[in-house]
Amino acid sequence: MSINSFSADLSPVRPGRGRRPAAEVRKRVLAAAAELLFDQGLAAVTFDRVAARAGASKTTLYKWWPSAGALAAEAYFNRVEHTLEFPDTGDIAADLRTQLRAFVHLMTREGAGSVIAELVGAAQTDPALRQAFSVSYSRPRRDLAIAYLQRARERGQLREGFSLQIIVDQLWGACYHRLLIPDEPLTIEFAEELVSNALLGASPAQRDA
Amino acid sequence: MSINSFSADLSPVRPGRGRRPAAEVRKRVLAAAAELLFDQGLAAVTFDRVAARAGASKTTLYKWWPSAGALAAEAYFNRVEHTLEFPDTGDIAADLRTQLRAFVHLMTREGAGSVIAELVGAAQTDPALRQAFSVSYSRPRRDLAIAYLQRARERGQLREGFSLQIIVDQLWGACYHRLLIPDEPLTIEFAEELVSNALLGASPAQRDA
Repeated sequence: MSINSFSADLSPVRPGRGRRPAAEVRKRVLAAAAELLFDQGLAAVTFDRVAARAGASKTTLYKWWPSAGALAAEAYFNRVEHTLEFPDTGDIAADLRTQLRAFVHLMTREGAGSVIAELVGAAQTDPALRQAFSVSYSRPRRDLAIAYLQRARERGQLREGFSLQIIVDQLWGACYHRLLIPDEPLTIEFAEELVSNALLGASPAQRDA
Repeated sequence: MSINSFSADLSPVRPGRGRRPAAEVRKRVLAAAAELLFDQGLAAVTFDRVAARAGASKTTLYKWWPSAGALAAEAYFNRVEHTLEFPDTGDIAADLRTQLRAFVHLMTREGAGSVIAELVGAAQTDPALRQAFSVSYSRPRRDLAIAYLQRARERGQLREGFSLQIIVDQLWGACYHRLLIPDEPLTIEFAEELVSNALLGASPAQRDA
């Protein structure tokens, strides 16, 4: 399924053609913003263009989002939300590999990599975007992963004595590193080795213990 | 030692006061660019301001750097180069902890964190900056780490069967993740746990094997 199939419900609608429920307008606005973001990049996501494309009033957009960057961040999350889902088969190595593979695929094959690189890049100098990115995307991602890892630890699959937050940085954070500072490629093989290394460790001593 | 003590040799020099060796001019230009970068941020690093501060001609700067962003990236590297040094005591856990602690200290206590976040952020939409950042900074950092890890593997301190590049992403990449997407803090404790986890692994099974 192409990521663009999300836009299938975006037939032209003129503003002011009668009142639509806010939830429906919001959905159309986010879909329109995501289209511009994925097709043309962050610079194309302006209140003017999103309002025109979604058939919404600019006043509404100004009321709902503090900046176009904040709207873009939420639109990104809305578009890729399905990859947030965490399989939980009870096999931690398999579950992490499935999740990481889906993430890397989204980044490298469905065009999300350059979009998220632009968003994280712009977030460094745009506080509203940074806030929206955290609230809409990176914090919920982290929380979902932690909830999974907590269950795995309760099953005895992760040792005690360290913060589970670290695993998020050593798996997805390592992928972001290759996305944002691309000296080495982000690949499925890399993702698989990340999971093995995070679970087994790089030290041979652990095998001989 | 404050990071600003690097600027001690920057007494005012007028352009055209006789010919100076290129290496000396280059050094002054990089020091002036680093001062502007650390004191006022990336936007302050313009050819105009750096040339004026270094007492160099703008023509020279245009000749040496493709963009002000590229100059900023090299200036950053030049300023923090001393932290690239890798201790090699033969104890891999201790050496990695020493290096990571120095890196985190530089980021969080010496002001480099916001600078590198701005540089990586801008690199997402500035190809010349991205190239300079890779050539001057991130690639040499990676190579130094890999050379160290290769020696450690030859000493039998790292298992075979995975790419050593991964360790770079799971240690320094994890730190960059917290720097660029700051949902969790970058701390010395985090750095220490990263090293333990990268070496020992998160799985209890390895301890019982």
